[in-house]
Amino acid sequence: MVDPSKIPKTGLTGRTIIYDEDGKPCRSCNTLLDFQLATGKIPKNASKVSTETFTEVIFDLIPGSRTYRKVPPPTKEVIGRSSWTLLHAIGAKYPEAPTQIQQDEMSRFMALFMRVYPMDDSSTFNEIQKAFKETRPNVSSYKGFNSWLCNFHNKVNERLKKEKFDTTFWEDRWANGWE
Amino acid sequence: MVDPSKIPKTGLTGRTIIYDEDGKPCRSCNTLLDFQLATGKIPKNASKVSTETFTEVIFDLIPGSRTYRKVPPPTKEVIGRSSWTLLHAIGAKYPEAPTQIQQDEMSRFMALFMRVYPMDDSSTFNEIQKAFKETRPNVSSYKGFNSWLCNFHNKVNERLKKEKFDTTFWEDRWANGWE
Repeated sequence: MVDPSKIPKTGLTGRTIIYDEDGKPCRSCNTLLDFQLATGKIPKNASKVSTETFTEVIFDLIPGSRTYRKVPPPTKEVIGRSSWTLLHAIGAKYPEAPTQIQQDEMSRFMALFMRVYPMDDSSTFNEIQKAFKETRPNVSSYKGFNSWLCNFHNKVNERLKKEKFDTTFWEDRWANGWE
Repeated sequence: MVDPSKIPKTGLTGRTIIYDEDGKPCRSCNTLLDFQLATGKIPKNASKVSTETFTEVIFDLIPGSRTYRKVPPPTKEVIGRSSWTLLHAIGAKYPEAPTQIQQDEMSRFMALFMRVYPMDDSSTFNEIQKAFKETRPNVSSYKGFNSWLCNFHNKVNERLKKEKFDTTFWEDRWANGWE
């Protein structure tokens, strides 16, 4: 249980943090920073940029629920972001020296991931499939897998006209955190 | 390309929307609602709840990048939420009458998902593994798979002392959206 005296009322942004009925900070209603503050993950590397007035808006509760709100289904952008978060988090925990079984499992997982991934927009999906086929997963080690995954992610970025990520910073972003 | 005259400057919350250098709304810096407004996904079912003053805080840019910021690695809560988003989105696109190949792929995907899922906290992971083993995936149809997935999600909620989700609302939340 969280000590009630330690629950922050005001976020890093100076705004009141919105909590659900059961005392959980509401992810949709707060900025990511305030949500992280409220859940005890206070971010570093943050700069103040402006002060303003706002009106808070939240989704209605689902009938009969104390905590679940009428959040719309995830957009393809949200599904994409969620997937990269999961894949890089998997990479961050991949063993330095995986067993043959772990290597086989990861190869098969990635291939099936590409089969079941939900995608309406077939032209975008085709681009991602091409990027995947150009560069088969390296599952030989932590370093090999993550280097492959960053390369795959950047190939997708390139095909979707997004900025490439400087892979020098991969471990800061996905595994170890920033200084 | 987005028509510049259509880029909202102020969010549903009345706050200035923060954009990255390339004109993309910053996910970490805006509330989910304002981010959705800026990306053209204006949510319904939202209520105004308060008006306040705040100071905006954002992560520093990664050296050399126009768009990537020093976002910390995902917490286990973020990884969990990302994973449920992906799994329910996969469910939302699962066929009404999947072929035998599609059924086999989904069974194998779910089993491998449980093998590669990154988890430090072995007691929580054990609870999730137990919930998975109690209820093997039903991959026979759209309805069967999603009913199994919601049941599995609720078993995990139960083990993690979270509120159960009323599965009556599954399709509104993950597939069709709210009225």
